[in-house]
Amino acid sequence: MPWVTDANAALLTDLYELTMAASYHRHGMTHDATFDLFVRELPRHRNFLVVAGLEEALHYLEELNFDAESLEYLASLEMFDPAFLDYLSTLRFTGDVWAMPEGTVAFAREPLLSVTAPLIEAQIVETFLLNAITFQTMIASKAARVDIAVGERSFIDFSLRRDHGADAGLKAARASFIGGAAATSNVLAGSLFGIPVNGTMAHSYVMSFDSEVDAFRTFARDFPDRAVLLIDTFDVIRGAHRAVEVAQELADEGVHLRAVRIDSGDLGALARDVRAILDDAGLHDTQIVLSGDLDEYRVKELIEGEVPVDAFGVGTQMGTSADAPSLGGVYKLVWDERSGPKVKLSTGKVTLPGRKQVHRFTGPDGRFHTDMISLNKEEIHGSTPLLEKVMMEGERTHDPEPLVEMQRRCLASLHALPGHLLSLEQDANYVVDLSPDLRSLEREAALHFRA
Amino acid sequence: MPWVTDANAALLTDLYELTMAASYHRHGMTHDATFDLFVRELPRHRNFLVVAGLEEALHYLEELNFDAESLEYLASLEMFDPAFLDYLSTLRFTGDVWAMPEGTVAFAREPLLSVTAPLIEAQIVETFLLNAITFQTMIASKAARVDIAVGERSFIDFSLRRDHGADAGLKAARASFIGGAAATSNVLAGSLFGIPVNGTMAHSYVMSFDSEVDAFRTFARDFPDRAVLLIDTFDVIRGAHRAVEVAQELADEGVHLRAVRIDSGDLGALARDVRAILDDAGLHDTQIVLSGDLDEYRVKELIEGEVPVDAFGVGTQMGTSADAPSLGGVYKLVWDERSGPKVKLSTGKVTLPGRKQVHRFTGPDGRFHTDMISLNKEEIHGSTPLLEKVMMEGERTHDPEPLVEMQRRCLASLHALPGHLLSLEQDANYVVDLSPDLRSLEREAALHFRA
Repeated sequence: MPWVTDANAALLTDLYELTMAASYHRHGMTHDATFDLFVRELPRHRNFLVVAGLEEALHYLEELNFDAESLEYLASLEMFDPAFLDYLSTLRFTGDVWAMPEGTVAFAREPLLSVTAPLIEAQIVETFLLNAITFQTMIASKAARVDIAVGERSFIDFSLRRDHGADAGLKAARASFIGGAAATSNVLAGSLFGIPVNGTMAHSYVMSFDSEVDAFRTFARDFPDRAVLLIDTFDVIRGAHRAVEVAQELADEGVHLRAVRIDSGDLGALARDVRAILDDAGLHDTQIVLSGDLDEYRVKELIEGEVPVDAFGVGTQMGTSADAPSLGGVYKLVWDERSGPKVKLSTGKVTLPGRKQVHRFTGPDGRFHTDMISLNKEEIHGSTPLLEKVMMEGERTHDPEPLVEMQRRCLASLHALPGHLLSLEQDANYVVDLSPDLRSLEREAALHFRA
Repeated sequence: MPWVTDANAALLTDLYELTMAASYHRHGMTHDATFDLFVRELPRHRNFLVVAGLEEALHYLEELNFDAESLEYLASLEMFDPAFLDYLSTLRFTGDVWAMPEGTVAFAREPLLSVTAPLIEAQIVETFLLNAITFQTMIASKAARVDIAVGERSFIDFSLRRDHGADAGLKAARASFIGGAAATSNVLAGSLFGIPVNGTMAHSYVMSFDSEVDAFRTFARDFPDRAVLLIDTFDVIRGAHRAVEVAQELADEGVHLRAVRIDSGDLGALARDVRAILDDAGLHDTQIVLSGDLDEYRVKELIEGEVPVDAFGVGTQMGTSADAPSLGGVYKLVWDERSGPKVKLSTGKVTLPGRKQVHRFTGPDGRFHTDMISLNKEEIHGSTPLLEKVMMEGERTHDPEPLVEMQRRCLASLHALPGHLLSLEQDANYVVDLSPDLRSLEREAALHFRA
């Protein structure tokens, strides 16, 4: 079973990118073009996005090349000129990229990333860039919602087993960390990205012993300062009493029961009962971890119900962004060197022409006030520009940023969002203006192309 | 940006698999255990599953090993004994695997795959197997629904840009081919799996020329026998007339316009108008391809409305299984060598004990009649067993199966399904019985564990 690698990633694209490129090549269309990557509309119950996936996008652009095997496959399709395949054999990405750093809070219509490069290069990277940026942005945005719901508590990514494949597992862990997760259960994500890893035990562990109490005793001894016991294999209340029994029995051996986890049933009621059992036994600092099909809505209910809980394991619903499992990211031609600004007028799919910048205005209270999308050459005062130059002539302008910085940026931005945008159920709008020059350009371009 | 590879895939697991394994190792728990992978309940509007992902699962099991870098990372966590890390350094998967071949139609509660191996090995592969099998099975099942909807027409996977990462893109193409897709736009999936690739042009192509008609003319000349023109960049009807103009102008050059594609607007009404325009010009064999947020429901509406359409491009909704973006796959301990059959009694999560086989009974009409889950040693007559031995002592028992065989198996199975299960909107049940021996074992085990 083959994996995606740096060597074959160039083929991870829609065929039409290559047929279009072949046509551009044949006709010497080597002029520069600018494409914007943005989300047309936020899904229901999404009042903002948290940008993620840029690091992967830049890595792909840096490594982009068609190796011998890829070229051989393309030749076998009998669809491409030898001259075009020759051209592909030495192709590298030589363009400029402007982008919002990962962890930035963004809104619909705002370019999250903008590529200016010779037309062929800018075109063939479309599919991969969309795949990388929209997926990770979707998950980081979902995780930020969970972060809003948990408040002072923490949450851990448990999604790997239900994520959409191996790479989705890795990236869901990464993106949910950017969105505020404290840790992940995904060991490879821990190893590759330095995310703290966290884990407890499964029901199969409990069932592999002659009795639940044997299982608890053994595990607590094996991990004396970090044991988290899963107490719902047979009956939660009985499981809680057994956990207490083991904690008391092994206290002299230096065992400290860090937490118990409940993964099924009426989590709120059970957590209350279990808290009482733990407290009665003096185990006040043994924490309660809840898991089992949780999302931001369910977490919010539990928190509002003042359920005694210390941390949440959040899996499937976050790792698949289950209530909005895709994000309508698009990558559109907005300018080219030959004829300037470009627009598309397809029903419901109109695009904003020209090369752009996004400006954020902050109010006197330190909160985000409005954004404005402008042309990139326009001078706009009193705002923070969000698009940074991250690649110049195919080379990164900065070293990769540490993941904790991205998380910090996201959490700071969530604090600076106008309060109504933090609602998990109410759709709320943040004002994104168009600058005067962009407005005029949009009008002119539409007239021109309708003509 | 690192990729998942054979070298690091062993770490693509939840941390708890490794902490449990460490505990098993310390206590010499080296006995064999059997885990079943199954789906507890089908999501709403899913009357069956199409199994996929086995090839990836077997590849993973064959290649499973912890390399030096992985071991170094695990050591850095300061959570594992050196003796356990030593053990991991030589670990290979040595177990047996029984599974349904890919493309098999299956139902809730039926083991899709069953692993018997030394407890530690069987445990640590849980997360990866769930990730591989449930994701691909979910997509193949969704694609089979699209296949039901399209009837005699064909559909093409266009999902890559919205799939959940790179690996999801590859596997969605593969799984949707198993479920009945005729082709994919994903070039890497074409290259690695031999799936036919297919593609048209994007709006950006049209916009890169001075006029739409220039773009059409150029593309049609470049791909004289395969050009599919996208006609909705500005206005569909005008686009259709321009496509006709180009086809007529270039007919003498041997250009044959294969198809036009409409990607936005009221697809049904537009397709009718465009068909009339093409027919009026004598372009009867120029096909119409529709795309744009299609799923099985929308496709069915179009087909029922007798819209003139030849093929569908189906993307996001299929590649993310948008109406059911996760499948509740679980992997449960059902038997071990030390104490026999195992059950778990957590609320709503009861499991069936024992090592099993799944039998399918076919009626006199050649249609599937009922399935029966039995113990593996039970003799059940007149049925076809669905679980095959696919791995013995860590080695595959067969060469990988060609993908077209899997697709053939799926399509034959869809034809053999009782008609009411083919409904896309009505939830319908197929009878899955438990054998008498399995029923008694279930009762006994529950009593034993409640005791």
